[in-house]
Amino acid sequence: MSTDAHTPEEKANLRLVLDMFDQVLNAMDADAVDRFIAPDYIQHNQSVGPGVEPLKDLLRFIKKETPQAVHDVKRSFVDGDHVIVHYHVRRWPDDLGWAVVDIFRIENGLIAEHWDVLQNLPESSPNPNSPF
Amino acid sequence: MSTDAHTPEEKANLRLVLDMFDQVLNAMDADAVDRFIAPDYIQHNQSVGPGVEPLKDLLRFIKKETPQAVHDVKRSFVDGDHVIVHYHVRRWPDDLGWAVVDIFRIENGLIAEHWDVLQNLPESSPNPNSPF
Repeated sequence: MSTDAHTPEEKANLRLVLDMFDQVLNAMDADAVDRFIAPDYIQHNQSVGPGVEPLKDLLRFIKKETPQAVHDVKRSFVDGDHVIVHYHVRRWPDDLGWAVVDIFRIENGLIAEHWDVLQNLPESSPNPNSPF
Repeated sequence: MSTDAHTPEEKANLRLVLDMFDQVLNAMDADAVDRFIAPDYIQHNQSVGPGVEPLKDLLRFIKKETPQAVHDVKRSFVDGDHVIVHYHVRRWPDDLGWAVVDIFRIENGLIAEHWDVLQNLPESSPNPNSPF
């Protein structure tokens, strides 16, 4: 994560996304979504429907089903109006979990578009390095 | 992709990575690896061994097994010494393929560290938006 060359706008965009991780994803708080995400945001994740309502439903579901879930941010980047976050989802304490990268586009101080890629972490690997 | 606020170093880092996509990944050219990737680079992909030799072996394998494979770059970003690329791998022309995000750390003009997340694209989705 490099911060020395970030513009004030980039700093604000990165802060918005990291605050969203804390207050929406890790808090699993559907009621906090509207503070961070535009109602008509463009969702590219292929597992949920478009717009904020399916996201709110998903947050309520995971809060009920996996109340110990964590979104553990490993690194984050900002380039203009885009913010990229690489993180480890664990649904329960000993879950191997998923490696995820989210890409967000920010517009008018809210998340306006979202892409992600998600991969199950393997039990074993030929590579001694961590996935993170 | 925002370029207006990029430093000269960021522009060079982004160019290195996009040239690597053309000349190594899309060319499937194991002999070009050393022009872009440090011999002792830190590989975090969990499917291959560390260092450049397993990568060269993989390139030779995919060139033989899937000679029509393409790495179709959808968007790319740079933040200081890190470059992020979101792309679509298709192994053959009608392959649904994978969505991938690569994160590269650049040091001394070469790729020094690499993380990635890879996901099979689904045949159908509740979301009418493209994965890209």
